[in-house]
Amino acid sequence: MESGAIYVKEYLVRISQLAAATEVPVATIKYYLREGLLHDGRLTSPTQARYDETHVRRLRLIRALVGGAGLSISAVRELLDGVDSPPESGHDLLGVAHHALAKPVAQATDTSAVDAMLERWGWGTDGCDDVGKAAVAEALEGVRSAGFDLPEGVLETYAAAMHEVADAEIAGVPTDSAESAVRYVVLGTVLVEPLLLALRRLAQQSASYQRFGPRPLG
Amino acid sequence: MESGAIYVKEYLVRISQLAAATEVPVATIKYYLREGLLHDGRLTSPTQARYDETHVRRLRLIRALVGGAGLSISAVRELLDGVDSPPESGHDLLGVAHHALAKPVAQATDTSAVDAMLERWGWGTDGCDDVGKAAVAEALEGVRSAGFDLPEGVLETYAAAMHEVADAEIAGVPTDSAESAVRYVVLGTVLVEPLLLALRRLAQQSASYQRFGPRPLG
Repeated sequence: MESGAIYVKEYLVRISQLAAATEVPVATIKYYLREGLLHDGRLTSPTQARYDETHVRRLRLIRALVGGAGLSISAVRELLDGVDSPPESGHDLLGVAHHALAKPVAQATDTSAVDAMLERWGWGTDGCDDVGKAAVAEALEGVRSAGFDLPEGVLETYAAAMHEVADAEIAGVPTDSAESAVRYVVLGTVLVEPLLLALRRLAQQSASYQRFGPRPLG
Repeated sequence: MESGAIYVKEYLVRISQLAAATEVPVATIKYYLREGLLHDGRLTSPTQARYDETHVRRLRLIRALVGGAGLSISAVRELLDGVDSPPESGHDLLGVAHHALAKPVAQATDTSAVDAMLERWGWGTDGCDDVGKAAVAEALEGVRSAGFDLPEGVLETYAAAMHEVADAEIAGVPTDSAESAVRYVVLGTVLVEPLLLALRRLAQQSASYQRFGPRPLG
């Protein structure tokens, strides 16, 4: 007769096997354990612990956040706390992800121009937090202080394109569990940024070639 | 009678005044002069040079690229070389900007999947360079290796949104001079990236609030 206990026991692996399965060095795994990013294994003797599939999944997630997205250990800790203790509201999931990823912005950033834009675009302001609005205000200020004028209507094109993107992303949030929803929101926010920027550059090349071709400038 | 010569002579300023006008420290200006990013002033005595409006404009551009966009001195040099000696073809302008901004990508990146996507999206491959295609391929690989599956159709939404963005941007390229075209393309590529990402996050907040509201997760 197969019991759950026997199954679990058979599955448990040593830290060296966990390292081999995830391609994360043993020393790095021990560091994540010390930092509390990875949960402890099950003690099989006073000096030996063993690990299971939950450790493999967690290590892959940490590696994606640290390596792929280049986040700091403290940002990863904040994100993982959100995964471990998901907020009750679906909307607050996004807040956890955005807060951990946000660059520090000046407290005194004036966001009234952004509020006016949100109203004009029909986005509503109830769901938008101050950090998000300040980030848009600072990005706009960065463009302007360089003496760069966005051509007429281009900001509206940016807003419309980003709202299409966000609508598709939010429609895809899994609803089977809070953990998978957080995972989706966190990874989708971080990992997709380089993809969007790379697609924009390629789209610029395509549009530029269609407009200018290989002809000399007029 | 006002002559051009007198006007120019009156305009010329000392390096300390140039520093005050641009808020760039004298030592930094001297560094840019040594590095050849800023052109020399006009010698008014064997040991003294004076500067004019062209130096002010150039310093503001350098500051935007180094400070605002966080580029390295060597990337700024490459961009400024493009501004100073614009390529003959309008399309090659974009190449100058993208080349200077591109992160190094693995030479061996397989871009055949990206070629297939470009064909499916009708972007054409003639105008798209290998570095741009490799960047998209690597970004997609980064998403996948983290175990994150883009929901069905979301990649197509990204591509369509970025093509709308690029179409509007390329339509706005000024055609009065090669210098202003290069300036537009370079600054537009670099400075707009943080704006797009900040708009995406705010759009996610708006879309998430509309979908989930403050209700608990289902």
